[in-house]
Amino acid sequence: MKKIEPRLPKGMRDLEPADMVIRNRVLSIIKESFEIYGYLPLESPALEYWEILTGKYGEEAERLVYNLVDHGGRHLGLRYDLTVPLARYIASHKHLIKPFKRYQIQPVWRAEKPQKGRYREFYQCDVDVVGSESMLVDSELIAMTVDIMVKLGIVNIEVRINNRKILQGLAKASNIAVEKTADVCQTLDKVDKIGWSAVQAELERKGYNQQQITTLTQIVTVSGDNATILGELHNRLTKVEIGLEGISEMQEIMDYLSKMETDLSKVKLVPSLTRGLDYYTGPIFETFMTDRAFSSLGGGGRYNGLVGIFSKEDIPASGTSFGLDRIVTILQEDTLDQLPERTTDILVAHFSTELRDYAVILAAMCRKAGFRCELYYDSVKLKKQFNYANQKNIPFVLLIGPSEAESGTIQLKNMQTGEQEAILQSEIIEKLSAKLNDGNVTLKKLKLGV
Amino acid sequence: MKKIEPRLPKGMRDLEPADMVIRNRVLSIIKESFEIYGYLPLESPALEYWEILTGKYGEEAERLVYNLVDHGGRHLGLRYDLTVPLARYIASHKHLIKPFKRYQIQPVWRAEKPQKGRYREFYQCDVDVVGSESMLVDSELIAMTVDIMVKLGIVNIEVRINNRKILQGLAKASNIAVEKTADVCQTLDKVDKIGWSAVQAELERKGYNQQQITTLTQIVTVSGDNATILGELHNRLTKVEIGLEGISEMQEIMDYLSKMETDLSKVKLVPSLTRGLDYYTGPIFETFMTDRAFSSLGGGGRYNGLVGIFSKEDIPASGTSFGLDRIVTILQEDTLDQLPERTTDILVAHFSTELRDYAVILAAMCRKAGFRCELYYDSVKLKKQFNYANQKNIPFVLLIGPSEAESGTIQLKNMQTGEQEAILQSEIIEKLSAKLNDGNVTLKKLKLGV
Repeated sequence: MKKIEPRLPKGMRDLEPADMVIRNRVLSIIKESFEIYGYLPLESPALEYWEILTGKYGEEAERLVYNLVDHGGRHLGLRYDLTVPLARYIASHKHLIKPFKRYQIQPVWRAEKPQKGRYREFYQCDVDVVGSESMLVDSELIAMTVDIMVKLGIVNIEVRINNRKILQGLAKASNIAVEKTADVCQTLDKVDKIGWSAVQAELERKGYNQQQITTLTQIVTVSGDNATILGELHNRLTKVEIGLEGISEMQEIMDYLSKMETDLSKVKLVPSLTRGLDYYTGPIFETFMTDRAFSSLGGGGRYNGLVGIFSKEDIPASGTSFGLDRIVTILQEDTLDQLPERTTDILVAHFSTELRDYAVILAAMCRKAGFRCELYYDSVKLKKQFNYANQKNIPFVLLIGPSEAESGTIQLKNMQTGEQEAILQSEIIEKLSAKLNDGNVTLKKLKLGV
Repeated sequence: MKKIEPRLPKGMRDLEPADMVIRNRVLSIIKESFEIYGYLPLESPALEYWEILTGKYGEEAERLVYNLVDHGGRHLGLRYDLTVPLARYIASHKHLIKPFKRYQIQPVWRAEKPQKGRYREFYQCDVDVVGSESMLVDSELIAMTVDIMVKLGIVNIEVRINNRKILQGLAKASNIAVEKTADVCQTLDKVDKIGWSAVQAELERKGYNQQQITTLTQIVTVSGDNATILGELHNRLTKVEIGLEGISEMQEIMDYLSKMETDLSKVKLVPSLTRGLDYYTGPIFETFMTDRAFSSLGGGGRYNGLVGIFSKEDIPASGTSFGLDRIVTILQEDTLDQLPERTTDILVAHFSTELRDYAVILAAMCRKAGFRCELYYDSVKLKKQFNYANQKNIPFVLLIGPSEAESGTIQLKNMQTGEQEAILQSEIIEKLSAKLNDGNVTLKKLKLGV
């Protein structure tokens, strides 16, 4: 048989153990927080009908969705996001108890040009509330975002918030037609990347006149603390009903956040925040690192029209999404020590074939006590067994040699300090518990190859 | 825009919150056990090159693998199992530290005819050791399987074990050519479903003669405890080297299991066990319920040739797989009480818009204490809020009415007994902890619709 080259398709990757350990730790913190806020898990199939997927995205779907025809001739596509499956689920479960609060953590696929750190398969972590118009929903999503980042040890963050109604109001106040809001937003959205003068130039190219641009820029660049900005926006939009509505919603959110004792220094009203997607209808929010550029960790907002695309009725909804890959990268870059990786705790080594049975018994004992334990399978030189523990960054080795077997003791070797001590078999569990819980055991980055 | 019908492709399903809660509980027990045995997580992409997927399965792949051509013209397919990605990973990481111990829990896709309880997308939970020929590997896989089932509360199980070398020995001892072993095994494999006389009839139809069939049946149906069967097999295969090798491997496994204090009443040597797949080369194992028919919960075995299909060398490997869907079904059928579902603990209700802020503060307090808590968002009649808690089987409601707001107390209502008591705000966390940890709170099956 000809040997097949073991390669990965373009834009795809394996998630190796060293990465998976951090990802799982991050996911468990995210999931726990979702559940503390009363969300329950949902999963949808990877494959959906093509017309379902393209119902929302139209032409973009043609370009970006992986599509196939199944063995029964059905035209299907791979899930592009987790919002369309939610809308499909809601539409086909008419008697669902509302509000419906679900979280969904699954991979999605996009046939985009792969870039550094961007793959064609990646996880989305979505959390949404369907069926309530209350600003409490949006407030909780923001509060939960702050909670999660703090629990992850990512503290240099800012949840930027704004409201699509304020953006509509701004357009109106600048004498721009409301239906042009999306067009203006598209340009405003680039301000972080290209700066204000380039934004103004682009608006000019798009045909907006100098007065429109100046008024818009003046309002959007209002600065100060949240209360000041809200006050200033109120002054400027005093006759624009939709804008006032947005301001009042944001005021309500700020009040709720304060009641929830959310750290308000991490929540910043930014009137130029637009979020790319057309479908948002109310509050929008996006989380950024404050110590580096272009560092969105996820975001969301209220989208009262979208969930209803497969239903006969409009259904209010609001939700947010966490960017798992970005979060993992940030943690790997600089705050990993706050989130130690726990991999395998102990390797049980043995001196010779004759002593292997002792090792088997010892490993079983450690596992019953809940330690993560590897038994070295083959009877090879001790040096090779120690080397294995070192390569895999296993912090402790238990060793049974002939003298230990006779005296009923076991050698415990700390692989980081090299210290070795003889301990009684009866003391092992207690000693290991103490050592593994001692802050001095820094679990280093797991290595898997040379 | 025309309304699109919100339907699922054939053979696909949503995993609803009521199912997901149990699945997540099962997965967390399985993952924890994998890690206690020193396995680390790995994930591979859903899409692989078509030639990689068909390298192992050939014609079967054409029929069963979902395939597509990506936007760059690459012929790809959806992951069919987790073994081929492992083999591909091993082949492309030549310097991996061996033995490589990984677990992988991901969905796979098969374009099979859907049946009751069988879908075209389902999760596999695989655990494998690559790079060791030691029978300790196989012993640990069996010991871990028993551990996991006991932890899941599934105690009426039997891990049936056998060895492909014994099956080859049996063929030889019955004067059947060794290369016919797979053909014979294929028929033997049906014994649970069709019984012995039908198996004999099929072997006859396949052209085996009466003497071959009689000898084979006599050996394969040897009964008694494990030691008796091993002794009897030894007597019958005394001149068949490959058979003796298999017997000695099984003896070694039994010895190790005994050292590991594995409950040997749950491990049964069954000489007719074959496992369908051709690629097994040594010990094989499969877990069954003892109180119902056709109830495989998963299985595996040693496959020393397979992992090397993309490499230049043969690499020894052994692994096993857990059938998540079957396990969840069993738990839903009859042992769920041993694995209580914890969903949302508390609903915070409020009497009127004026009292909403108290509810917001109270919910934030409960969440800080780690309770899973929902805040009822809208200010509607209390009856509707209680009804919501009942529908979602939330066991406790905290309520703030006007008199409570004045007196600084809160009403705590047990939704299962209907009991209601006034408690001081300072006592809430303590009281709720006690009540939620009290065995009398049976968390009933979560309902999501009417």
